Amino acid sequence: MQALWLENNQISLRDISRPQRDDEALIKIRKAGICSTDLELIKGYYPYTGVLGHEFVGEVVDAPDKTWVGARVVGDINAVCGKCEACLNGRPTHCENRTVLGIANRDGVFAEYTTLPLENLHRVPDSVPDEMAVFTEPLAAALEIQQQIQIKPADRVLLVGAGRLGQLIAQTLALTGCDLHVVARHPYQQNLLSARGIRLIAEADIQPRKWDVVVEATGSPDGFNLARKAVRPRGVMVLKSTYKGEMNVNFSPLVVDEITIIGSRCGPFEPALRLMEKREVDPTVLIAAQYKLSETLKGFEYAAQPGVLKVLIEA
Amino acid sequence: MQALWLENNQISLRDISRPQRDDEALIKIRKAGICSTDLELIKGYYPYTGVLGHEFVGEVVDAPDKTWVGARVVGDINAVCGKCEACLNGRPTHCENRTVLGIANRDGVFAEYTTLPLENLHRVPDSVPDEMAVFTEPLAAALEIQQQIQIKPADRVLLVGAGRLGQLIAQTLALTGCDLHVVARHPYQQNLLSARGIRLIAEADIQPRKWDVVVEATGSPDGFNLARKAVRPRGVMVLKSTYKGEMNVNFSPLVVDEITIIGSRCGPFEPALRLMEKREVDPTVLIAAQYKLSETLKGFEYAAQPGVLKVLIEA
Repeated sequence: MQALWLENNQISLRDISRPQRDDEALIKIRKAGICSTDLELIKGYYPYTGVLGHEFVGEVVDAPDKTWVGARVVGDINAVCGKCEACLNGRPTHCENRTVLGIANRDGVFAEYTTLPLENLHRVPDSVPDEMAVFTEPLAAALEIQQQIQIKPADRVLLVGAGRLGQLIAQTLALTGCDLHVVARHPYQQNLLSARGIRLIAEADIQPRKWDVVVEATGSPDGFNLARKAVRPRGVMVLKSTYKGEMNVNFSPLVVDEITIIGSRCGPFEPALRLMEKREVDPTVLIAAQYKLSETLKGFEYAAQPGVLKVLIEA
Repeated sequence: MQALWLENNQISLRDISRPQRDDEALIKIRKAGICSTDLELIKGYYPYTGVLGHEFVGEVVDAPDKTWVGARVVGDINAVCGKCEACLNGRPTHCENRTVLGIANRDGVFAEYTTLPLENLHRVPDSVPDEMAVFTEPLAAALEIQQQIQIKPADRVLLVGAGRLGQLIAQTLALTGCDLHVVARHPYQQNLLSARGIRLIAEADIQPRKWDVVVEATGSPDGFNLARKAVRPRGVMVLKSTYKGEMNVNFSPLVVDEITIIGSRCGPFEPALRLMEKREVDPTVLIAAQYKLSETLKGFEYAAQPGVLKVLIEA
């Protein structure tokens, strides 16, 4: 089968053998999404060799439990052991022995087929089309914020960054009724937010030390510093992106101001599917282009352009 | 009156006029404690000119409300406006217009007299002697941890640092029943903890990524890095000390592991007084020496020696 292979910071389309695991579902990929993490992995953010890609919707074509065959599914990207301390304490996404779809020791989804354990799969409601379902994973990551901290309706919330993940974070935070403002650099990003009635704020207009919660979704030191200045004493900074290398941070003011910094990663799939089913969020507005699997390299080129949001790959 | 004056990184004993404020209580200092923050202020951690010192027990000798006269008191160090956003939202220690006893725009307690607003004062129960009551402020700071996060009885808690504040943190955390281990460098610090049945752990024996909560109380980059390595995914790092300058930190693993970092400063006085009244904690074991006010400079010299815990000044 065709697959996008990452090795030594290079991606290439290869013909590899179809995956086969008796203990897992075989899934025919219908659509897959290019995520910023994919672009970072190519740059070497984390050493990974194998088939890239972790956002997908597909169809089960074989499974240990045949009742799954034919099901349209999305899948949690962390395949876990169920036996380690993290798993046994309700933190399976932090499993000490996990493999991660298209990220760590497990071939991903820019391919005709992939495999995942059955317990990772979620059936997609009929009313959620493929081009929406393919966003389940990043939408779940956006919802992880609210799994970790309570966003109160009266909170002043600042979101720094309105890229692929930022747009989904904005849509989910807006549902809380909080006083949300978003820093978005690109006009296209701004227009998508404005169209949903989500307020923008210029960097120069951000009142320092006034925001109850600040979500940092740029992954840049500039974004971090902006977030740091904006958060109020005893406020919360949510870090929703990884950062290249080390950052110089003065921790004393963070102690004096009793700031909370919390890292945030993978989230729950079922609420993401529920919100899409009810059309409370609409990730499809992010779709910038769709490419055939055979044109994946072109898709990656396009996805790497500044301001481009979601590029989908059709298998 | 005699007072310890800080100016341009130099302390000296001076004869200054007795403070007088019609809107505040005049307090005759009975005992005052030398805190690491005092030593840091001398080194220039934060620009301050005036009378140093913020840990004290004293007697009210004059007040707008005469029922206070004669009361033995301790006092919250933050004098607040009551009108700013922080004050009106239940965060008075973060008042935007605050002055801070012996730290910011308010003369401190290494002196014969000081003044504070009546609302800052707490009456000391008769059963709590001066040499215990003088620890109310740092004990309150230790309790601030449990104002901010829940320490569960089954939590594995690591405390890095067993100096002046670390000892009090250890005593208060031990009351939760949690599985507490303390990294203490100096034999004297170790003996104080062992005498209370608090477990020590050598740095080499600290299991990485296994501790639910790690409290960092050294204020050193080494301590920070040790804490960072010890905390488990989705665990909490409490920063209980300020850090000189900037630190280089790689935030990506903090995001992937969804770590929470929380700064922690001033805490509640009443629970501190209750715990001392019931002898659930005993800060007096920290007392290394007591000096007369006229010998305060000697006291500071001694307090700056490595491993020395609390030095008290008797006014």
